[in-house]
Amino acid sequence: MTDAHLVVAAYWAAAEARDWETFGGLVAEHVVYQAPQTRERVRGRAAYVRFNVEGFPGDWHLAAERIVGEGRHAASWIQFSDADAHYPGLCFFDLDEDGRIVQITDFWPTPSELPASRAHLVERC
Amino acid sequence: MTDAHLVVAAYWAAAEARDWETFGGLVAEHVVYQAPQTRERVRGRAAYVRFNVEGFPGDWHLAAERIVGEGRHAASWIQFSDADAHYPGLCFFDLDEDGRIVQITDFWPTPSELPASRAHLVERC
Repeated sequence: MTDAHLVVAAYWAAAEARDWETFGGLVAEHVVYQAPQTRERVRGRAAYVRFNVEGFPGDWHLAAERIVGEGRHAASWIQFSDADAHYPGLCFFDLDEDGRIVQITDFWPTPSELPASRAHLVERC
Repeated sequence: MTDAHLVVAAYWAAAEARDWETFGGLVAEHVVYQAPQTRERVRGRAAYVRFNVEGFPGDWHLAAERIVGEGRHAASWIQFSDADAHYPGLCFFDLDEDGRIVQITDFWPTPSELPASRAHLVERC
């Protein structure tokens, strides 16, 4: 396992534990979070910890489905769960030279219709 | 760069080049493709090559934004473009012991509304 893999595993474990001190210590002071689907951006450790503490109310839980790390890069696929449902969450991470997460790009895909044009080429699962 | 990284880079280069022979050689005979959003599944190399050749008509292009590989696992974030727009595509890959792609899980996130509950915690980008 690479360092980037371990850092991202610790990041998700800290989030699940609401251990915001550990969580904040894993991200760089000048971390930048972006969610392209909603065009959200959060800059800086303090703002990013606050975003996580306050931005997702309710009794959510998460579990890492897959983490892949290579050099200063990593990707994760988590299952995020709340009272209503499970949602896959996908993140790409960049780490700085100190091994802290400095860039996060976050995606939340949602169910969608199967295009009729390729319905004959697939089975449903 | 890991082998898994190189295999996934070659996979996307072959798709962009419509080099379906190379593309087919990079996936295992019993490859399984899944797209959880549409609940699509495709099993086997022949069906999976056909799905790619026939399932996406039009003059599309793609470019790899990020590939991360570790051991027999990899993740990619591509930009897929057609006449209308650009779309991010996110995949997680497993490779078999021969270095061929044996499992692909594919996600296509789409634009969504910013929840009002966290609008005060972010800027827009």
